[in-house]
Amino acid sequence: MVPVPDMQKRLKSDLARILDPIDPYLKKVDEQIRLKLSTGVPLIDESALYLFEGGGKKIRASLVILSAGMRVEPSDEAIDLAAAAEIVHCASLIHDDIIDQSLLRRGVPTVSRRWGSRVAVLVGDYMYTTALKVAVGEGAYSLFPVLVAATSDMVKGELYQLEYSGIDRIDKRHYFTIIELKTARFMAACMKMGGAKGGFSSEESDVLYGAGLNMGFAFQIVDDALDVMDDSELTGKDGGNDFFEGKVTLPFLHLLEKADSAERARLVEYSKSPSAEGWGYVRSRIRDEGGVEYALEAARDYNRRFLEAMDAFPSSPYKDIILQLSKFLVERNY
Amino acid sequence: MVPVPDMQKRLKSDLARILDPIDPYLKKVDEQIRLKLSTGVPLIDESALYLFEGGGKKIRASLVILSAGMRVEPSDEAIDLAAAAEIVHCASLIHDDIIDQSLLRRGVPTVSRRWGSRVAVLVGDYMYTTALKVAVGEGAYSLFPVLVAATSDMVKGELYQLEYSGIDRIDKRHYFTIIELKTARFMAACMKMGGAKGGFSSEESDVLYGAGLNMGFAFQIVDDALDVMDDSELTGKDGGNDFFEGKVTLPFLHLLEKADSAERARLVEYSKSPSAEGWGYVRSRIRDEGGVEYALEAARDYNRRFLEAMDAFPSSPYKDIILQLSKFLVERNY
Repeated sequence: MVPVPDMQKRLKSDLARILDPIDPYLKKVDEQIRLKLSTGVPLIDESALYLFEGGGKKIRASLVILSAGMRVEPSDEAIDLAAAAEIVHCASLIHDDIIDQSLLRRGVPTVSRRWGSRVAVLVGDYMYTTALKVAVGEGAYSLFPVLVAATSDMVKGELYQLEYSGIDRIDKRHYFTIIELKTARFMAACMKMGGAKGGFSSEESDVLYGAGLNMGFAFQIVDDALDVMDDSELTGKDGGNDFFEGKVTLPFLHLLEKADSAERARLVEYSKSPSAEGWGYVRSRIRDEGGVEYALEAARDYNRRFLEAMDAFPSSPYKDIILQLSKFLVERNY
Repeated sequence: MVPVPDMQKRLKSDLARILDPIDPYLKKVDEQIRLKLSTGVPLIDESALYLFEGGGKKIRASLVILSAGMRVEPSDEAIDLAAAAEIVHCASLIHDDIIDQSLLRRGVPTVSRRWGSRVAVLVGDYMYTTALKVAVGEGAYSLFPVLVAATSDMVKGELYQLEYSGIDRIDKRHYFTIIELKTARFMAACMKMGGAKGGFSSEESDVLYGAGLNMGFAFQIVDDALDVMDDSELTGKDGGNDFFEGKVTLPFLHLLEKADSAERARLVEYSKSPSAEGWGYVRSRIRDEGGVEYALEAARDYNRRFLEAMDAFPSSPYKDIILQLSKFLVERNY
């Protein structure tokens, strides 16, 4: 789901409030991103740094910093890893936008629209490899495999989604595999890397990984549910981006389970040839069957598991921020 | 330059003769590529392995294996690194073909033509990250930075080429930077990684890096010169792919230096609006001024430096193959 700029602003300002205590670190992350990506070649510097101008939510960088900060003052190495995580995330957005032919991202024209697909493909590649180089550069060889595996899984998740998110193929198992690969493992890796940099033991870092995994599931389920709930009152849009792209997410899967075979055939038809009329029907039936509530309950369930995992760690100001962040990501309605 | 299938077959069969003694290892590389890229998800497996079906020249894998084999029997770890190098190379070809809208690669339809750009972007990303994961997986942490830096440089070289290969911007310095980043450093990294895996000292591995750098320069200069020489007698094509893509390479740079200001203006015009007529003129003037011979002499010069570097190593059957390979890459006329 691509929130419209207004919603994105609101999301960002609410997040900014929660993340305010680590703002000086996030500013350092910005500096490091700029430093790591700069080459002196105008085309590369402009296109690679362009999306960061718009700011971005920096959830992944925050997870690295907060996880490290639960134990010690976040080090420069933690900042570097946070920068690497944001660069990877941004590269994935640039590549997504090429093919979705998206016009806007973070309120500005997409890289592919501004410089063309050739530059967008290459600059994404450049950012992926540079991010991985950053993680090597600061000597964190033991963490490097974590970042590279998470990056690989994220891309694999996108491909898995292409293969299995259509209505002919998908079941709930596929859905959860998609969001685990695409979103959850990367957030988990951010928490693990931060924890390791903060001096947590390998076992503790693995607990953080598990916590991040649950947070990631919850985050993506809510994001997908919002695309169904999305209505003009809140966002000025009718939602259904996933539907129109032929992607079946959890609320729709719930409806498919409830539908009898005649309705199922109708839903399959609508999903294969998406139209405004089809979306109107699917959406109202998802509501009738409580599909959104079902998805949000699943998200809350993941969030509970996240909280249980976090119980292993003593209270601290940074832990408190992580808990606020997870609460916000699950409870937001935009 | 994309050789037409016939030429590609000839190139491959001549290479195969030279590389015949390491054929069992190259077969193992193929197996490892298949193993590393397989996921069980049909879309990923088919699209990622697709280009390897056509075979490919495997120059990079050979450099890893031969460099290791100068000292010891190439180990499974060397095979893994060779596979990683080929996967990176193949990913770059898939991404190149998206935007060039190329129809054929290795004699078969390109990945982007067969599965669309979305899959091509993502599968290239998947291959890049998987290749880097392979290099981590076999525990070669000390070599990992070599591979990731070479990959990053290769992509940076492509972007640098977009920025500086047009006739308004380029000079010889830019040209050599482009081919160093795009081609030479990766071949150098292959030799260094192989050497390190073969148990050569860090100093010796650096000598191999230097040798590979020179081989890479020579290889790319010849490749670019062939695109100018390319004629229907040999290939059934009129060459000039680079010219039509607005890329200025060494033979053309030589002509630009020889041209007076009136002719220069004409050449700039032709380069900016490429036409068959323009190419006919540029090509015949490059011939008049010995531009191809100039480039080939530069390549031979790099090859001499390559040979000097290789003098540091005692004769061995594998060294002999590397020397044959470099001779072939410089002297080939197709």
